[in-house]
Amino acid sequence: MSSRKSGFSDRLIEAIAQKRSYVVVGLDPHLELMPDVLQPEIQGREREKIAEVVADFCLAIVAGVRDIAVCLKPQVAFFERLGPQGLVSLERIVKEARGQGLLVLMDAKRGDIGSTAQAYAEYFLSDTLGGLDADAVTVNPYFGRDGLRAFVRYCQGGKGVFLLAKTSNQSSADLQDQVVDAKSGKRVYGLVADMARELGRGVQAQAAHGFGSVGIVVGASHRDQAEELRAEYGDLWFLVPGYGAQGGGAEDVVGSFDSEGLGAVVNASRSIMFAFRGEGKGQARNQADWVAAARKEAERMRADINAALIASGRRLAF
Amino acid sequence: MSSRKSGFSDRLIEAIAQKRSYVVVGLDPHLELMPDVLQPEIQGREREKIAEVVADFCLAIVAGVRDIAVCLKPQVAFFERLGPQGLVSLERIVKEARGQGLLVLMDAKRGDIGSTAQAYAEYFLSDTLGGLDADAVTVNPYFGRDGLRAFVRYCQGGKGVFLLAKTSNQSSADLQDQVVDAKSGKRVYGLVADMARELGRGVQAQAAHGFGSVGIVVGASHRDQAEELRAEYGDLWFLVPGYGAQGGGAEDVVGSFDSEGLGAVVNASRSIMFAFRGEGKGQARNQADWVAAARKEAERMRADINAALIASGRRLAF
Repeated sequence: MSSRKSGFSDRLIEAIAQKRSYVVVGLDPHLELMPDVLQPEIQGREREKIAEVVADFCLAIVAGVRDIAVCLKPQVAFFERLGPQGLVSLERIVKEARGQGLLVLMDAKRGDIGSTAQAYAEYFLSDTLGGLDADAVTVNPYFGRDGLRAFVRYCQGGKGVFLLAKTSNQSSADLQDQVVDAKSGKRVYGLVADMARELGRGVQAQAAHGFGSVGIVVGASHRDQAEELRAEYGDLWFLVPGYGAQGGGAEDVVGSFDSEGLGAVVNASRSIMFAFRGEGKGQARNQADWVAAARKEAERMRADINAALIASGRRLAF
Repeated sequence: MSSRKSGFSDRLIEAIAQKRSYVVVGLDPHLELMPDVLQPEIQGREREKIAEVVADFCLAIVAGVRDIAVCLKPQVAFFERLGPQGLVSLERIVKEARGQGLLVLMDAKRGDIGSTAQAYAEYFLSDTLGGLDADAVTVNPYFGRDGLRAFVRYCQGGKGVFLLAKTSNQSSADLQDQVVDAKSGKRVYGLVADMARELGRGVQAQAAHGFGSVGIVVGASHRDQAEELRAEYGDLWFLVPGYGAQGGGAEDVVGSFDSEGLGAVVNASRSIMFAFRGEGKGQARNQADWVAAARKEAERMRADINAALIASGRRLAF
């Protein structure tokens, strides 16, 4: 059926090829990192005003990186903490970005029992009642399969879901690294990868290149585990956070890619959004300054990852 | 210091004693379950209008159960799915309920890396930038300890945190029941209980009766596991969902209590909010009808649990 909406995986591969990039730009508007010249519009102001400043700032960054970012990843926490007006700003950003043809992945990390998960899924992945209708969402797998199906069922309509498997923070080992099968050495994050594979196969035929629309999150800070997962789960997309401000470099992310240069996209948030801070500690004078700094860092990151992939003996997917 | 705010645990015990009740009333406004006479104000209407109807409905229920409910538990998903106006309604409900002296536990189940978790914690547990300043919050433990500390540090100021340990849904077994230590038989949910204990001890001296302000969620559908956890973690509060619409009865929850009738509170959401549906399938004519039905069901539940505790040989804590 030519009218059938293409799957999330196919749309992601298309964006990678078109932009010659694996860069996902995270939108994490930490208020204290916003430009010094904007601080008078933030410090001590009403959250309605702050939320507007945040939206304008984010949309300027988006405009600067739109031909480099294969995906935008707004972190919902920073909008929710601004209350109702924060959601107004979030909805505005998502709508404008999607209108420009960008893929938008909501970093929501929601998870609940089925009937409640359904409410979250509707808000993030559908346009029911003014929902965000984003392209993909991150989901916390702690509730197990019945809590995940509410999100995954949207994959049939072209959406993507990334289950948290091995997150980028240090304490991720507390639960995620626990060995649950002594014989095979399987860990909790491996069970999550199994669930992603099972759920992905259940809702949609495999897309071109063999990837499904249910992927996993695998932090850049865990190279060995990423390589191990890549070897075992060749059909899963990896969303790789932790590059940049969290300390990961290109050499930390190449192991998440397959030999054809597919299977992973790499997120950076603060290192791109607030790149101007690396060039004079917040002394950006105006929007042109912070947009230029963000664009320059996104270009550098794109080149860095592409070069590391080639150096590792992998091909690029474009 | 007499000016020191009392801990969440002490405030919860006070509410239990005052109301002679262990009943937590969940606010889960499923739109399709709202009264038939309100459906013309919901179906096909703008979400701004729907969110107002939802807030009015919830606040009427709150007024009806306020002397029975030891705590209110708004499910954030059902408000977030209504967008910005949903948060306006949520903030209104929380503010009015707290103004009436009710404890409010946000069922948010958020979880993220530390710097992001901090943004969620600020919104739910503080009044910074118009935050909800609720009394407690549910948190997903998948990120491990560093992601949890952002929430737990508010316990010092009198807030409570409940980590998801063993949830009420069937698929909770997928990850939560995994044995991570063959010798001791320790499971993932036991590791979460260990974290709750460690984090609770770290931030606040034990309160009266020996309970801390970091508790765990233990679903009513898992009696054996609840009893096992109660025996091992005598100092942790259990939030017990799954009574009522999810199928649990009083006999399923008594094992979560200690011999003194402390250590647990029991949530019901749909069975109370939508109790009128049990009495004629949505034919409640007006607010007085659905409030009366909710109150009656909350009273029945209170008596049911209290009787089951006595029948089990436990004391009541009042």
